Amino acid sequence: MSTVTVTLPDGSTLEMDAGSTVEDVAYEIGPGLGEDTVAGVVDGELVDKHTPIETDVTLEIVTPSSDEYLDVLRHSAAHVFAQALQREFPEATLTIGPWTDDGFYYDVTDVDLDEDDLETIEVEAQQIIEEDYDIERVLLDREEAFERYEENPFKQDILETEAAGEDPVSFYEQEEFYDLCQGPHVESTGEIGGFALLEISAAFWRGEEENDTLTRVYGTAFPTQDDLDEFLENRRKAQERDHRKIGQEMDLFSIDDTTGPGLPLYEPNGKKILNELSEYAAELNREAGYDEVETPHVFRTELWKKSGHYENYVDDMFLLDVNDEEYGLKPMNCPGHATIFEQKNWSYRDLPVRYFEDGKVYRKEQRGELSGLSRTWAFTIDDGHLFVRPDQIEAEVLATVDIILDTLETFNLDYTVQFATRPEKSVGSDEIWEKAESQLESVLDEQDIDYVVEDGDGAFYGPKIDFAFEDALGRHWDGPTVQLDFNMPERFDLSYTGEDNEEHRPVMIHRALYGSYERFFMVLTEHYNGKFPPWLAPEQVRVLPVSDDNIPYCEELRDELSEFRVEIEDRSWTVGRKIQQAHDDRVPYMLIIGDDEEDAGTISVRDRKEREEKDIELDEFRDHLATEVEQQRTAVTFLAGR
Amino acid sequence: MSTVTVTLPDGSTLEMDAGSTVEDVAYEIGPGLGEDTVAGVVDGELVDKHTPIETDVTLEIVTPSSDEYLDVLRHSAAHVFAQALQREFPEATLTIGPWTDDGFYYDVTDVDLDEDDLETIEVEAQQIIEEDYDIERVLLDREEAFERYEENPFKQDILETEAAGEDPVSFYEQEEFYDLCQGPHVESTGEIGGFALLEISAAFWRGEEENDTLTRVYGTAFPTQDDLDEFLENRRKAQERDHRKIGQEMDLFSIDDTTGPGLPLYEPNGKKILNELSEYAAELNREAGYDEVETPHVFRTELWKKSGHYENYVDDMFLLDVNDEEYGLKPMNCPGHATIFEQKNWSYRDLPVRYFEDGKVYRKEQRGELSGLSRTWAFTIDDGHLFVRPDQIEAEVLATVDIILDTLETFNLDYTVQFATRPEKSVGSDEIWEKAESQLESVLDEQDIDYVVEDGDGAFYGPKIDFAFEDALGRHWDGPTVQLDFNMPERFDLSYTGEDNEEHRPVMIHRALYGSYERFFMVLTEHYNGKFPPWLAPEQVRVLPVSDDNIPYCEELRDELSEFRVEIEDRSWTVGRKIQQAHDDRVPYMLIIGDDEEDAGTISVRDRKEREEKDIELDEFRDHLATEVEQQRTAVTFLAGR
Repeated sequence: MSTVTVTLPDGSTLEMDAGSTVEDVAYEIGPGLGEDTVAGVVDGELVDKHTPIETDVTLEIVTPSSDEYLDVLRHSAAHVFAQALQREFPEATLTIGPWTDDGFYYDVTDVDLDEDDLETIEVEAQQIIEEDYDIERVLLDREEAFERYEENPFKQDILETEAAGEDPVSFYEQEEFYDLCQGPHVESTGEIGGFALLEISAAFWRGEEENDTLTRVYGTAFPTQDDLDEFLENRRKAQERDHRKIGQEMDLFSIDDTTGPGLPLYEPNGKKILNELSEYAAELNREAGYDEVETPHVFRTELWKKSGHYENYVDDMFLLDVNDEEYGLKPMNCPGHATIFEQKNWSYRDLPVRYFEDGKVYRKEQRGELSGLSRTWAFTIDDGHLFVRPDQIEAEVLATVDIILDTLETFNLDYTVQFATRPEKSVGSDEIWEKAESQLESVLDEQDIDYVVEDGDGAFYGPKIDFAFEDALGRHWDGPTVQLDFNMPERFDLSYTGEDNEEHRPVMIHRALYGSYERFFMVLTEHYNGKFPPWLAPEQVRVLPVSDDNIPYCEELRDELSEFRVEIEDRSWTVGRKIQQAHDDRVPYMLIIGDDEEDAGTISVRDRKEREEKDIELDEFRDHLATEVEQQRTAVTFLAGR
Repeated sequence: MSTVTVTLPDGSTLEMDAGSTVEDVAYEIGPGLGEDTVAGVVDGELVDKHTPIETDVTLEIVTPSSDEYLDVLRHSAAHVFAQALQREFPEATLTIGPWTDDGFYYDVTDVDLDEDDLETIEVEAQQIIEEDYDIERVLLDREEAFERYEENPFKQDILETEAAGEDPVSFYEQEEFYDLCQGPHVESTGEIGGFALLEISAAFWRGEEENDTLTRVYGTAFPTQDDLDEFLENRRKAQERDHRKIGQEMDLFSIDDTTGPGLPLYEPNGKKILNELSEYAAELNREAGYDEVETPHVFRTELWKKSGHYENYVDDMFLLDVNDEEYGLKPMNCPGHATIFEQKNWSYRDLPVRYFEDGKVYRKEQRGELSGLSRTWAFTIDDGHLFVRPDQIEAEVLATVDIILDTLETFNLDYTVQFATRPEKSVGSDEIWEKAESQLESVLDEQDIDYVVEDGDGAFYGPKIDFAFEDALGRHWDGPTVQLDFNMPERFDLSYTGEDNEEHRPVMIHRALYGSYERFFMVLTEHYNGKFPPWLAPEQVRVLPVSDDNIPYCEELRDELSEFRVEIEDRSWTVGRKIQQAHDDRVPYMLIIGDDEEDAGTISVRDRKEREEKDIELDEFRDHLATEVEQQRTAVTFLAGR
């Protein structure tokens, strides 16, 4: 009998008989591990523990304490949902039901479900979990498999594509329920400690809009009810501070179908915040020696052929035909900046040359994947490109990382760092890639930054350091980035005259402090729950006259605060309602002005943390707010220490 | 015999026999006028003086003192060119040769001309003028006309289109030369006092890129040699201050074929000027109660169908297909702003609502008509839209005109004003148009502004007041505008709640202070000849070290002037060369720093007007420059009074 070599996560190896299963290997390592085994990760793929190993592989044993255990559990939860659905709605047809990052979904059809139905199904699912049915893998002849799915064209389709040629065919069964499935699954339905159905949406078979419309039911599952409760609480909080909800409440932005999905319009309040963010970045950039430039949103595709983006990005580009020439909305700002660099003759003394631009880019996402400001067709990168001599790379990357760390601190954002290396689809020689990767890595090490290496996740033109924002709910969002590029200067034949009077090739560095303004705006809106720091708040102060008679004095106060964004609430409401509205609008400071204040020439201040104090001099308030704004403090602090 | 009524420019009328010619009418008015008559303008169209009048018409007699005389003279000059061409290059084929604003052109083919050939032809043309040939109108049978043009497919094409059915056909002849032509022309070639050929370019038959490529020869003509000399001198000056030339010299912007014609890229120096212009407008807008908004560059065409732009503008729009839905780059910002207004419920107390945006728009001009920044595919309007109650229209238009007049004064620009009324292609009822026109006109009258009425030149959605910049060379360029719009609020069903608690329709006002940033940038560049006022200059101060030893002190000075845009000239050149370069770069102020200055702790200042003075305190210079910048003065004044 032939043997195979199994390499374990710690690098050690085992010689096993060919055909041994994942579970066999686990028992070989130790009986305790064998007993705990739920599934295996063979060459990166999560598989059933009964999967035979026929060639040399890497193997990770999955037990209830592995990260992958949650995926396996949720896969079984999808089956529990399907079983409950078929008990309650026997007419329903099943299609596919995979696990996801947050739980699972199952796409079904021939059934019309609403929120109430989900409750009914959930009750039945709880019953199935309580019964603790064994979940068993069963192998059937292809013929039998087709017989089972005589009336289900979707499962037939799977048998003819994903499962083409498979014989016998793998099913999983629990009590009366069966499903065509590769696994893996937990041992029994009782392992599911917490189970919940979350929402219904529409989907297309195979994700293609021309195919059948299906009903997608989202759910989730956890080993314990406590884990589930915590998840549901976080989800509720996330929904409450969803930027789309806050955006509407605060009149920040709108997106609709007539103007076009994925194409946000910023209302005055949103634009005020955007302008502050833009000015903040512009100041950092100018201090760091950057020059602002401006490039078109549309270019001839010749430019993208020159840059090499065309072959990699054309499917995601918005293209237009103008007089039989092909043009495209820019998916990237870099070729435009390289074109500007090309306009002049540069000396080694002029480098580094640093350009920045709030540059709008366009990428054709699937319409169904668009979501508020987090996923759009058009988004604005606070894009910087540096053209540096090879001996300047490390210093410039260091300086850039410094500015990024400053930015993250200003907004009080936690973050994680990834170092992404060469992807499969890439341009440039091995030598160039190795050089680039080692330089970025040495900056990270010098700066003592914790980071994880993401193998193969780099841009096609070079390796990169990606920062991800971690928001108040622990979610991660793409953020700042620093990317080396030894490729585009070649493509554009960029050069500078060296001290030796010869022509030399500069290196390009791509960088962004926010990444996308749209996504950053979303992260901040949810991070602050709409309670933007005073320097960002679209309305910094609202003046509330106790009666209409106080309006003229309120107008005087507004004029004295003209350096700030101040509004007067002049509707004929009670003071109580005015205060409530200002709280709802998340205004940092309210000045409440009645006859007492007017007579004394003072103000009453209330902040959005519901602290309130009377008899304050306007000058004191103004000076404090000026400092708060200038120092870009994240909290309202005027009444904090009083 | 029947009679016709001829209405003259002063409103008086004459009864004439039907079939009387323009010349007959002139003689009827007076024999002197009859003798002077060159041509006539019948119902707005310039025609030969022998044209018979068969119906009631309006008529203006053209004499050598009329504005139109220059058109007639230049039309004859085009024939003189063609005659000279055929004498020198008998193989040449003629197509069309109209007059233009600046002279004339003639499109020819089957001949390969260069600048030297133009000189030869010009000499021959002078000879033809000296011979003073009579120019005569000759009527030929269609058959004879076709015989003349047996070998000229272009003239045949004209006979079959513009001259379809005409019999006899009108020709003009001088000596051996003839041309198919409706006239009018001057009496003889000797009337041309000054004649010059200017340049050669390429053109397409009928302006369509798929047709034959032709050679276009531009020329001009005047009644006297003095007039021509003045024109040529102005043209030379205009070419010297051509913004494309200055733009390259000062690294302001670039446009090229790989990135796309008509799509400018702004280099750092250009972007600095743009930012100052944008900030200037934004401040005026904020003071006037405007809120900034931001809308996408691309929208679903549904929006343009809703606004009514689609039917009028679709041919000039850049369109894209996204998932089988039609999208377009925006040709206008207004529908986006109307969409933002739509997002909220408005009360009569909230109006006027005023939005502004530096909004990029896209209009598909003929590629051959693109020219630098004056004619582009993508340009940015400093666009403002007001949503007002009917009772607020006049006050808001008045306020807008005030801001426009302020702007024109700041940039020291002369201007003319047109009041443009309802065009043929328009939407909206007669009543709406009359109301709108009378309100704009009353503002102009109240403000005591000189204006001309341009009948039928309004936008399709309403009447407008257009300001045109008049530059240093007397040329006119489209500038600020105020446009009333009673149509779009209907289209978007916009409303506000009135004091009566009913829904009412607001009125929209479109306005711009600059018009297009691109064109305004061009006007300013040429107006100032690149010598931008200190507040706009991309580099306000250049520090010139006398020797490299002075560089550290120069760096200190730069740091003390950090509020300004300051560069150090650190190339190892002689001071003389450094000064020359700073003059070439049009830098307002140079600080020349040698050991004397360094020892005394002072500076030497030189300005771009070549004034220079030593031993100046830095503080004095800095304070003066700060005032100059803050007050947006147009000239450098620090050394003016010393």
